[in-house]
Amino acid sequence: MSRLVSQMMQRASQALLEADREKAEAVIEADDEIDSINQEIEDAATELIALQAPVATDLRMVISAMRIATTMERMGDLAQHVAKTARMRYPDAAIPSQVQDEFREMAQIADRMGAKMAEVLASKDVDLAREIENDDDRMDALHRRVLDILLGDAPGPVNQAVDVTLLNRYYERYADHVVSVARRVIYLVIGERSDAS
Amino acid sequence: MSRLVSQMMQRASQALLEADREKAEAVIEADDEIDSINQEIEDAATELIALQAPVATDLRMVISAMRIATTMERMGDLAQHVAKTARMRYPDAAIPSQVQDEFREMAQIADRMGAKMAEVLASKDVDLAREIENDDDRMDALHRRVLDILLGDAPGPVNQAVDVTLLNRYYERYADHVVSVARRVIYLVIGERSDAS
Repeated sequence: MSRLVSQMMQRASQALLEADREKAEAVIEADDEIDSINQEIEDAATELIALQAPVATDLRMVISAMRIATTMERMGDLAQHVAKTARMRYPDAAIPSQVQDEFREMAQIADRMGAKMAEVLASKDVDLAREIENDDDRMDALHRRVLDILLGDAPGPVNQAVDVTLLNRYYERYADHVVSVARRVIYLVIGERSDAS
Repeated sequence: MSRLVSQMMQRASQALLEADREKAEAVIEADDEIDSINQEIEDAATELIALQAPVATDLRMVISAMRIATTMERMGDLAQHVAKTARMRYPDAAIPSQVQDEFREMAQIADRMGAKMAEVLASKDVDLAREIENDDDRMDALHRRVLDILLGDAPGPVNQAVDVTLLNRYYERYADHVVSVARRVIYLVIGERSDAS
C-alpha cells in the first residue's frame, strides 16, 4: 500500500509538471485500489483480533496498522486530487512558471518522503522515521514560499491562484500524513507518543 | 466528541462571518481537547479489546468507534483552520461580500450536519444517517457556486481568492467527513458497506 501510494503521488506530480494526461488518468484510476486495500486491511485486522486475541504490543501494532492504512488512503486521495487538477487544465499546465521550481522541489520531497515511509514501515528504523520531520520542514518552507509568490507583486489570474492554492495545500498535507505515519512507527517501537493520529 | 466538534465548527463559522476574534481563539484552543479525546478513545478501545475480547458485531463496533473518532479529529482540524483564517484577517472579514450568502448557508449546513451526526451516533437512526447525503449534495452545490463566483466576471484580489478557495474546501471536506461517519453507522446497523472509511 505504501509503495502504491508513493507511486501514485510520483505519477501525479509528473502529470502535473509535464501536463501528461495519461499519467493523470492512471493515478485517478488507482485510487479505487487504495480504497480497497484500506478496507482489506481493516477486515484482516478485525479477523486477526477476533481469532488470535492479540494483547499488549501485538494489539497496539494491529490497531496502528489500521490507522496507518487510513492515513495512506488519504494520501492516495491527495495524489488523486493533484492528478485531477492536471487533467482539468490539460493540455495547459496547471502550474504557472513563477512557481514551477517550487512545485518541482515539493514533488521531489513528496517522493523522498514516500520512499522513506515505505522503508520505515518495513524496517522500523526510528532514526529514519525522525529524519522525515526534516523533509517536512522543507516542505512547509516551500509551501509558505509559494503563498508569498502568489500574493507578491505579480499576481496571475484568479483561476491560476485557485489551482496553485489547492495544489500547494495537497503537497503540504501529503507530507503531514507521512509525518503522522512516521510518528506512529516511533511510538510503536519506543513507546513514545508525539501527536501521532 | 461529536458535540464538541460541532460546537467548534459553529463557533468557527461565527468567528469567520462576524470577524469575532475571541471565538476564533476559543476554537483554536479547543482543538487540543479533540486530539486528546481521540487518543483516549483509541486507548479505551485497545483496553476494551484486550480485556473483554469482543467478537463479531461488538468488535466491529469498537473498531468503528476508533475510526469515527479519527474522522471527527479531522473535522476539529478543519474547524481550527476556519478559525485561524478568521483570526489572520481580523479585524477585516475573510469572506468578501460576493460570497457572504453562500458561506452563511454553508455554515448553516455544517451546523445541521454536525447536529445530525451527533444524533445518528446516539440513536443509530439509519434514515437520519441517509438524510445526511442530501445535506452533502447541497454543500457540494454551494462549493461549486463559490468557485464559479470566484472565477466569474468580477474577480477580487488574489489574497481573497486564496482565503476563499481554502475556506470553501474546508466546509466541503467537513461535510464529507460527516457523510463518512453516517455511512459507517449505516454499515454497523445493517451491514451494508458504501465507501465508509
